[in-house]
Amino acid sequence: MIDEKLQSHFFALRSNRLFELFVVAIILFSALVIGAKTYDIPQHVLQVVSWLDVGITLFFLVELSVRFIGEPEKRRFFNNGWNLFDTLIVVVSLIPIQDSELALVGRLIRIFRVLRMVSVIPELRLLLNSLIKALPQLGYVVLLMFIIFYIYAAVGASFFGPINNELWGDISIAMLTLFRVMTFEDWTDVMYETMAVYPLSWSFYLSFIFLTTFAFLNMVIGIVVSVMENEHAEEEKEQALADGVPTIEDLHNEIIELKALIKAKS
Amino acid sequence: MIDEKLQSHFFALRSNRLFELFVVAIILFSALVIGAKTYDIPQHVLQVVSWLDVGITLFFLVELSVRFIGEPEKRRFFNNGWNLFDTLIVVVSLIPIQDSELALVGRLIRIFRVLRMVSVIPELRLLLNSLIKALPQLGYVVLLMFIIFYIYAAVGASFFGPINNELWGDISIAMLTLFRVMTFEDWTDVMYETMAVYPLSWSFYLSFIFLTTFAFLNMVIGIVVSVMENEHAEEEKEQALADGVPTIEDLHNEIIELKALIKAKS
Amino acid sequence: MIDEKLQSHFFALRSNRLFELFVVAIILFSALVIGAKTYDIPQHVLQVVSWLDVGITLFFLVELSVRFIGEPEKRRFFNNGWNLFDTLIVVVSLIPIQDSELALVGRLIRIFRVLRMVSVIPELRLLLNSLIKALPQLGYVVLLMFIIFYIYAAVGASFFGPINNELWGDISIAMLTLFRVMTFEDWTDVMYETMAVYPLSWSFYLSFIFLTTFAFLNMVIGIVVSVMENEHAEEEKEQALADGVPTIEDLHNEIIELKALIKAKS
Amino acid sequence: MIDEKLQSHFFALRSNRLFELFVVAIILFSALVIGAKTYDIPQHVLQVVSWLDVGITLFFLVELSVRFIGEPEKRRFFNNGWNLFDTLIVVVSLIPIQDSELALVGRLIRIFRVLRMVSVIPELRLLLNSLIKALPQLGYVVLLMFIIFYIYAAVGASFFGPINNELWGDISIAMLTLFRVMTFEDWTDVMYETMAVYPLSWSFYLSFIFLTTFAFLNMVIGIVVSVMENEHAEEEKEQALADGVPTIEDLHNEIIELKALIKAKS
Repeated sequence: MIDEKLQSHFFALRSNRLFELFVVAIILFSALVIGAKTYDIPQHVLQVVSWLDVGITLFFLVELSVRFIGEPEKRRFFNNGWNLFDTLIVVVSLIPIQDSELALVGRLIRIFRVLRMVSVIPELRLLLNSLIKALPQLGYVVLLMFIIFYIYAAVGASFFGPINNELWGDISIAMLTLFRVMTFEDWTDVMYETMAVYPLSWSFYLSFIFLTTFAFLNMVIGIVVSVMENEHAEEEKEQALADGVPTIEDLHNEIIELKALIKAKS
Repeated sequence: MIDEKLQSHFFALRSNRLFELFVVAIILFSALVIGAKTYDIPQHVLQVVSWLDVGITLFFLVELSVRFIGEPEKRRFFNNGWNLFDTLIVVVSLIPIQDSELALVGRLIRIFRVLRMVSVIPELRLLLNSLIKALPQLGYVVLLMFIIFYIYAAVGASFFGPINNELWGDISIAMLTLFRVMTFEDWTDVMYETMAVYPLSWSFYLSFIFLTTFAFLNMVIGIVVSVMENEHAEEEKEQALADGVPTIEDLHNEIIELKALIKAKS
Repeated sequence: MIDEKLQSHFFALRSNRLFELFVVAIILFSALVIGAKTYDIPQHVLQVVSWLDVGITLFFLVELSVRFIGEPEKRRFFNNGWNLFDTLIVVVSLIPIQDSELALVGRLIRIFRVLRMVSVIPELRLLLNSLIKALPQLGYVVLLMFIIFYIYAAVGASFFGPINNELWGDISIAMLTLFRVMTFEDWTDVMYETMAVYPLSWSFYLSFIFLTTFAFLNMVIGIVVSVMENEHAEEEKEQALADGVPTIEDLHNEIIELKALIKAKS
Repeated sequence: MIDEKLQSHFFALRSNRLFELFVVAIILFSALVIGAKTYDIPQHVLQVVSWLDVGITLFFLVELSVRFIGEPEKRRFFNNGWNLFDTLIVVVSLIPIQDSELALVGRLIRIFRVLRMVSVIPELRLLLNSLIKALPQLGYVVLLMFIIFYIYAAVGASFFGPINNELWGDISIAMLTLFRVMTFEDWTDVMYETMAVYPLSWSFYLSFIFLTTFAFLNMVIGIVVSVMENEHAEEEKEQALADGVPTIEDLHNEIIELKALIKAKS
């Protein structure tokens, strides 16, 4: 009985706009604390900052508890990916870290707390969800692109490896170099070096640039077209649901009624 | 009485096409004067240029007065952002500046007078207004992008700070460096430097490039789709308003009339 | 009488597919000759090449004459921009050039002969015409972009001129430097140099990059939307002209007829 | 008789999902072997790798035979471009290569075996086919772009050849340099060098960049528009085929029937 009351109270609190704003403010403040730490700051300020850190961790623990207790069905709480993410961040923050190796990991976790901004602001959550939804459409194009990269990297490592070991030493380094060529970053320096040995190697770079640019463009166009179609389909659905605007099908039914009426009279 | 006459006279003058052209010519001339000043010019020409400057400032004052007196309702004059901008530019130009520090500010103000071109030519004003209207659509994507930048900059400043203080010294410098990486400007130099210490740091750069490119693309596609929808909606509205082309709804009403007619007869 | 016969003969010749192919072959050959000249070639081959050059010039003269005599209405010949272009190229090629200064101009004219490929192949002429048609849509965006460039160049020349005279010496050099920044070409080198004097000058570059990228994107999107609308409008027109598919307006008229029929009966 | 049985057995095997997965696994494995070879590996491992190589070649031979024997009509087998590609790869792999010169070619063939991934996975085959279908649309734009490149390269080689022989030595090197300028890769270095001799040569680079960017943009927009139209047309066709939704034409016919009914009654 008390539990239920608490639950409904916390549910109301968690849906409260002011509470949400306060959580956003605390996350913003934690982001500023993280930023401040990257500057050269005197020792005593650093002390204050680390206390603030503990405070923020505790606040996040409280906030997560409120959200969990406020949830009417506990099981659904962990079905939500964002809740899992929040829980993970809070739990890892709680582990006391002494080891200097792990201190870096602790720092990383604290930085990822800024990502909680996305899990708290509904509009950002929506935006990220729609971005993630667009990913599967890329699947096969990304696979094709990876095959192109792999083949060119294998050719590059076989032929140019002895010329420049830093750029073409093995297949993974060669793939990184090819990504660099794809971003046009000093790609001519890479090319001129191999052209000194293989004068025709410009065809290797040019064909690679054309293939990847073409595949990339195709991918972008494909996404534009599919997004527009979805929008269009949704629009039509909405229009069909809109209040009483007659469709061609309605007209069809009315004409059939008319016909029946005329026939009945004769 | 005299005021009203003056007002209507000035209103006519301000709407006059020739007056508008003359103002554009003066603004163009002031732009040329500003450009001329950046070249090495002899002292006596500089003297002429500074006289011209005073002349232009006075002309702008007169033009603004004409526009203000010509306005039927004085209050509405300052509701228009462009008028406020014009007034600000003219007023600041009038302040006599002696101090060498402020001389630079004065110069800046004179340069911004070229922006009056936008406030005078209606087509440019329209274009800029439509550009500004497109901004709010970007809101949440820009926020998401800023969060991505902030997190990567915090990670970068924490790990790479000791490697290169110039590029990763604190979080604001790190954000500038990340913007550089996003524009592909010598980004491999930045990467190779950190890869010498952390061999896996290529994943930091590649994931950042993928995330920002993907978010940017999504933003562009989102704008394209929303602009097209608006155009489409406006087109349909226009068509509905167009002279007497019947819609499906009209047909619907006509069939109902038909039915009534047949029923009435029986 | 003889003139007319000649005219119709030449008109037939000029429309002949084989003649067209032969002209394209000669233009291609002249392009190859131009390309060959850029290589180091022995003196006697150079002699042959210069004879070939004279031959090509004479052939173009003959071809142009055929096209002119073949034209039914001489006046319309020079109304066509492509014919004017062809005539100019041929006439200038005929002028004997001795002076070494002008020899370069002669060379340039010979290179522009390759552009005749566009004037001879109808598909390319169509493509170029459609590209040129897209230009006026850009008008005001280009003007706005020029104003942005001019203002930033004026600010840049005023403030950064004393720092690096090569990059910011006067307003025209500053505009070239800004174009370089817009293409992201070593733009950070330019920025780091001025940041050493004005630590806040990064805001100058970042705001410039955002403004120009945003204006450019808007321009591209505007063209996409307007091209699509034109296509859409043409499609609808075609559909309306298509054989007898009834429109909503037809239905409207038929229902009115029905009503008249029923009324007439009562 | 036995042949037919074998054929139907092999046809079943070849369409088997498990067999397909196994082939993909072997191709993946061969890709890994190729990648492994680019690392420094001890001699005895290299021995194992070369044995694996022979095994993979034999497996591909068996797989191709299965697919060939499984084909009901042998002629159609070689009408499929992918089968031809597979056969070529397998046959060339079988040739024993001793010569060190040809060893590189053999290595190349082995790398191209990874491309068999595309010929085996149906979704990738579809994707590549659709990419290849988009190519002809580019035809004339690519020709126009080549003409632009050729003319600018001829001008560049004529004027800038004596300035920098490495970049502008002959027309083919000049075209490579122009491609570099088009990708904005250190293009200002190229420009500043020629501006030292011809101060106005910036107009050469800027006009080239504008022309190629404009042509490229136009190409992309053209593809987007044509892809969308095709999608739209297909959608309409599907809707027409969909189950019984009435069209405006159906209404038209029904009203005609109505009219006949009323007329018949009077």
